[in-house]
Amino acid sequence: MSKTDKATKAQTRLHNQQLILNTIYNQGTPSRAEISRITGLARPTVSELVLLLIGAGIVEELGLGPSEGGKRPTLLKIVDNYKSLIGLDLSKHAFQGCLMDIRGNVLHRITMPLNNKTGEESLQIVYDLIDQLIDANSLPLLGIGIGTPGSIDAQKGVIRRAVNLGWFNLPLRDLLNTRYQVPVHIANDSQMAAMAEFTYGIKREQSNLIVLKAGRGVSAGIILNGQLHYGEGFGASEIGHVRVVEKGKKCACGHFGCLETVVSSRVIVEMAIALSSDHPQSILAERTKTRQVFIDDVIEAYQHGDEYLHILLEDIGRHLGSAVANLISALNVKHVVFAGSVSGFGAQLRDIILREVRERSIPTLSNDVSIELSTLGDDIVIKGATAILLANELGII
Amino acid sequence: MSKTDKATKAQTRLHNQQLILNTIYNQGTPSRAEISRITGLARPTVSELVLLLIGAGIVEELGLGPSEGGKRPTLLKIVDNYKSLIGLDLSKHAFQGCLMDIRGNVLHRITMPLNNKTGEESLQIVYDLIDQLIDANSLPLLGIGIGTPGSIDAQKGVIRRAVNLGWFNLPLRDLLNTRYQVPVHIANDSQMAAMAEFTYGIKREQSNLIVLKAGRGVSAGIILNGQLHYGEGFGASEIGHVRVVEKGKKCACGHFGCLETVVSSRVIVEMAIALSSDHPQSILAERTKTRQVFIDDVIEAYQHGDEYLHILLEDIGRHLGSAVANLISALNVKHVVFAGSVSGFGAQLRDIILREVRERSIPTLSNDVSIELSTLGDDIVIKGATAILLANELGII
Repeated sequence: MSKTDKATKAQTRLHNQQLILNTIYNQGTPSRAEISRITGLARPTVSELVLLLIGAGIVEELGLGPSEGGKRPTLLKIVDNYKSLIGLDLSKHAFQGCLMDIRGNVLHRITMPLNNKTGEESLQIVYDLIDQLIDANSLPLLGIGIGTPGSIDAQKGVIRRAVNLGWFNLPLRDLLNTRYQVPVHIANDSQMAAMAEFTYGIKREQSNLIVLKAGRGVSAGIILNGQLHYGEGFGASEIGHVRVVEKGKKCACGHFGCLETVVSSRVIVEMAIALSSDHPQSILAERTKTRQVFIDDVIEAYQHGDEYLHILLEDIGRHLGSAVANLISALNVKHVVFAGSVSGFGAQLRDIILREVRERSIPTLSNDVSIELSTLGDDIVIKGATAILLANELGII
Repeated sequence: MSKTDKATKAQTRLHNQQLILNTIYNQGTPSRAEISRITGLARPTVSELVLLLIGAGIVEELGLGPSEGGKRPTLLKIVDNYKSLIGLDLSKHAFQGCLMDIRGNVLHRITMPLNNKTGEESLQIVYDLIDQLIDANSLPLLGIGIGTPGSIDAQKGVIRRAVNLGWFNLPLRDLLNTRYQVPVHIANDSQMAAMAEFTYGIKREQSNLIVLKAGRGVSAGIILNGQLHYGEGFGASEIGHVRVVEKGKKCACGHFGCLETVVSSRVIVEMAIALSSDHPQSILAERTKTRQVFIDDVIEAYQHGDEYLHILLEDIGRHLGSAVANLISALNVKHVVFAGSVSGFGAQLRDIILREVRERSIPTLSNDVSIELSTLGDDIVIKGATAILLANELGII
């Protein structure tokens, strides 16, 4: 047998092992016979590789399941506390981190305010966050996954440019590798959100998916053919900085009229406050008198009676609908998940976006499009960061 | 050895054979040693599979090359007239077809005016076209590749909807399969154009590519990770029907303000004629007096002195630049090829598009973007149709 053949055989074995692990992970409690049926692998191959997975401590026998005609089969399951994972979200005002099991259950959670720190100081917060999560950890650690804002080289694990954090060409993966001696995976926060939806989300069974995320920033993470699309420079998903208003407002990126200048949470709050000044008795106007308001306050006010804010939803929906129309026309992807704090406006905003998509693109494509609200909440980036770990370290998707 | 192992071995063998064939196709005249170096395959594997390719009549020995130290190596090459291919372009006013060798050299060419025929009558023209090409053919036929307008199911080979041709759910592949007994591949004309650039074009070495095609229609064929992106319903690339003008003109698709209503060749001709009426001494104004003018006349008039037409280029460039900005921001693809009759305006229009892309998207992405003019001319769809045949039937990309 030649070297190539040997390499191919080893590869096939690894592939089959991951196939079996995936089947157990996604089916819950299958028997060996079921795994064989689902994967198309021969029974002896399944038995041999399951034995290896049990030996590695990642799979366990659960007991006997109901008979399917013959003797009762032994059911298999993933050992939920096989290893723990650390996921970090560095895209918010405060750094957030979670210790999770491989099912994505949160074991421990820490939030550390950034207080506008940058450079070495903000890096120190990352260390402190991980240190504390490791202190709380009692399992072997599979690795660390990090979603950060800015321009990332996901392959090298380098933050090329994250203006708000003052990081330029920061080799974050190597720094953390050296310090913690575990695998580290880094990607853009919007790409992490897409990975989260693809692994844990409401449309996780789809192998093509657009994850529209609107919050402080606006982005569209893209899954094509079961793979996260990073782009040639790992910069895919940056739709927030395409011009959508001619002669529009200045954006943080230096350009004018970007999508983020009309639909980011910050801008929506500003516009909502301006609108509320004409409605001094409204919920939002009352609230602005007592404290700083955030996007969640605007959403709450709208949902509890501040109907004058509807004009805002029409405006946001038109811009986001136009962005989605561009994406589905170019890519012919059918499923869109809407995430980020702005998605908190719920079905009302979702329906406006969908209406706009249908009016702004060819019916043969847009008729098939669905837009679902994300169910992953605030932890979406952290969940994506751990999903990347699962995919890269265990081959689980 | 299990069945799976056997299947994998056979697959590996096929994969290696295609790898070798590709290397010979793309290198021109490599020796076995060079193939081994390039592919990483062991020398005996290369020798064994080359022998099979020679036996199949697709590869031949060319003679001895220069010594690289030891004895002079035998050079290999593709047998250019191994088989012939038929490529059809059904996206124009006249149906066009070419008989080609596997190098993409045209052996015979036929154009048949459509004269607004539809349904069965337009299908008969397809038959006549292929019949005549087969009459002119003296080689074994590898297959037939067809680029058509409209909505296609490329997997089933069915034209779901091509309004101008009056075809609805036409099983074109099966019809041609039955009639000619050779493999038939069908795809959207813009996807074929992308395949042509990816196989024969100026940026063929790139595995990520956007092919912006502006002519009667406007589309963007997308190559990602070395694969043509068809989309979930084979409808990817339809950027021509995204709304770009609010309350714009009615489009053939039924919507208003689509990209095609402002940059298709037909619209450009209309606008140019309108502009020329203010310049009665201009080249274009003179020409409109004597006969119907087409996009090529407008381009020629502009390039030979009708400078008042520059305002048109600014307008086209702004709209196309905006479309490309959307694409490169979402996908982070660095190379764009500009094709179709409108690209005849050349570097002047290309530069306006590039300027707009840079102004309308984030510099970390757009600074790396290049836009090249297609070198494939009018045959781009036909070349793509034969490229799809090569890829699917011989594994050559």
